[in-house]
Amino acid sequence: MLKAPQLFINEQQCLANIKKMAAKIPAGFIFRPHFKTHQSAKIGNIFKACGIHKITVSSLEMAGYFIENGWQDITLGITCNIHWTEDINLLGQKASLNIVVEDAHVLRVLMKEIKIDCGVFIKVDTGAGRTGVKSSDVNVIDDLVLLLKNSEYLHFKGFLSHAGHTYACKNKEEISEIYFQSYSQMSVLKERYIKDFSNIILSYGDTPSCSVVDNLSHFDEYRPGNFVFYDLMQYEAGVCSYDEIAVSVAAPVIAKHKDRLEIVVHCGAVHLSKEYIEIEGQKVYGEMSISAQAPSLNRAFVKRLSQEHGVIGVNKSVFEAINVGDTVSIMPVHSCLTVHQFANFLK
Amino acid sequence: MLKAPQLFINEQQCLANIKKMAAKIPAGFIFRPHFKTHQSAKIGNIFKACGIHKITVSSLEMAGYFIENGWQDITLGITCNIHWTEDINLLGQKASLNIVVEDAHVLRVLMKEIKIDCGVFIKVDTGAGRTGVKSSDVNVIDDLVLLLKNSEYLHFKGFLSHAGHTYACKNKEEISEIYFQSYSQMSVLKERYIKDFSNIILSYGDTPSCSVVDNLSHFDEYRPGNFVFYDLMQYEAGVCSYDEIAVSVAAPVIAKHKDRLEIVVHCGAVHLSKEYIEIEGQKVYGEMSISAQAPSLNRAFVKRLSQEHGVIGVNKSVFEAINVGDTVSIMPVHSCLTVHQFANFLK
Repeated sequence: MLKAPQLFINEQQCLANIKKMAAKIPAGFIFRPHFKTHQSAKIGNIFKACGIHKITVSSLEMAGYFIENGWQDITLGITCNIHWTEDINLLGQKASLNIVVEDAHVLRVLMKEIKIDCGVFIKVDTGAGRTGVKSSDVNVIDDLVLLLKNSEYLHFKGFLSHAGHTYACKNKEEISEIYFQSYSQMSVLKERYIKDFSNIILSYGDTPSCSVVDNLSHFDEYRPGNFVFYDLMQYEAGVCSYDEIAVSVAAPVIAKHKDRLEIVVHCGAVHLSKEYIEIEGQKVYGEMSISAQAPSLNRAFVKRLSQEHGVIGVNKSVFEAINVGDTVSIMPVHSCLTVHQFANFLK
Repeated sequence: MLKAPQLFINEQQCLANIKKMAAKIPAGFIFRPHFKTHQSAKIGNIFKACGIHKITVSSLEMAGYFIENGWQDITLGITCNIHWTEDINLLGQKASLNIVVEDAHVLRVLMKEIKIDCGVFIKVDTGAGRTGVKSSDVNVIDDLVLLLKNSEYLHFKGFLSHAGHTYACKNKEEISEIYFQSYSQMSVLKERYIKDFSNIILSYGDTPSCSVVDNLSHFDEYRPGNFVFYDLMQYEAGVCSYDEIAVSVAAPVIAKHKDRLEIVVHCGAVHLSKEYIEIEGQKVYGEMSISAQAPSLNRAFVKRLSQEHGVIGVNKSVFEAINVGDTVSIMPVHSCLTVHQFANFLK
């Protein structure tokens, strides 16, 4: 009896995913999950119940939202915008904040304008090619560290990296390789500056790495986000099991087309997002769960997606079993983007 | 001084786009624009000021929203969900509604449960392969028409098609060909049933078709949506001029990487959407406006996109001219999806 697509969160599975990740991080190492994946105080409470109190966010808006909801220790994990200083001065009165920098010009502006105590991580690019200084650019890093050494309010915390290139990996081995390559780059930096800063933190993120490596005791801090829900992309890369996927979209079936063996659901790009992966050379925007078990040989993928429609290819027996008016369950390709589409639902 | 990505709508250009489209539709033909593109009462008012009073939407929620905002004549342009009947009975008391069907089983349910006067279009698939009956499936269509002939509340209005396959066209000629192929399929249906229903309406949509064909006097009704904003996809297909793109996202520059000649903006998949087009064999998620003029030889594309970040490739002189902290303007690939991401902003 579904009138519109609806997000479904398996909170028991979220809890299991959080506990499993937390158990991999030994005492003395920091677990600072990324909350951009869910952006939800409600899901945040599941983390809180597991004793997690340090978090990462990726916008000023999320920082404000989670502070309002009682979170007191937040890293703004996106390279700091120089126009955020006024807000940082306000938010920093309510919570302990860390920011991320990669540019001396920006850091000088921040040092001039930020008037509250604030932790600073230097962003390191270990190969993702998005933001951050390469670990080999020691002159740039020397300059940043020197500036921080003389800063009154901005306190050098360490180096932060997001190895986003693990998302393009095809298997566990490739992911593991990036993890250890990143560690080797970042540990050199720790050694270089440890004399002057004895508490340097190496902070590392990304769900593929943190899921695949058994014992998270190399970096000092871990910031995965996606693992709370996982998704089809992570399953296909061997990062999670089918059962660990804790998010789906319930979608009403509005049409069936026997000649094409396709069912059409009211569930489109504004619900799932247009993220896709390729499976057997075919673009896939989501997978319909046919049973509660692991996927059968005959998987049913969302093959095409427009604003409000999804088209799912099925075999003959599945086609016959599903009727117009039924609700089907679709696993998203990328849970962070899908959940964002339903952000108000989780608030 | 931008703290977060922000949608920018050029309302003057919207007005010009609406007037231009309206002028192509002669008196006696119906202009029923699709409001899924903007989902905004504010943008709706620009249409209203142009004398447009009939609209199309693609969800129950949008229908309710626009009725609340004074719209009285609405086609629910998505194949009707059998669980919508209660809402249709309520909304139908406040506005004149049309729904879309393609399946006799569904139609029987709707006939049983809908107790207010409601127009019905039969959805025809002229080649998009999403929803709708093929015009050659005359037995299916005969059954639907016969059911409607004997319905007390549901009134047969005609045939409705969305030639969504025009969005994959590379040029005007391909688009034009689909328009006339669709017309030839649908006009056969009109002839077949005109004896019994003298006012059959052939309703046709999609911005590429409606923009490319000079004189919209073949079908009886036109339902384009995207044209109010246009976007990079339409520009690349030759559907609109550069100046006609009425939407952009203002994005703060947070990092620059000289070795890669890339600038990084806080503007990601949750702002632009993950829709892409290929230009010169490269995935493109948006285009940075370098000047107010038509694009120069050195265009600057959003090459990579993660949740909150976009990476723009630029040439050396553009790289030098842009500083961290600046705001750049990005044209989206698909305005419907980008504007949806900022839906609250336009409400």
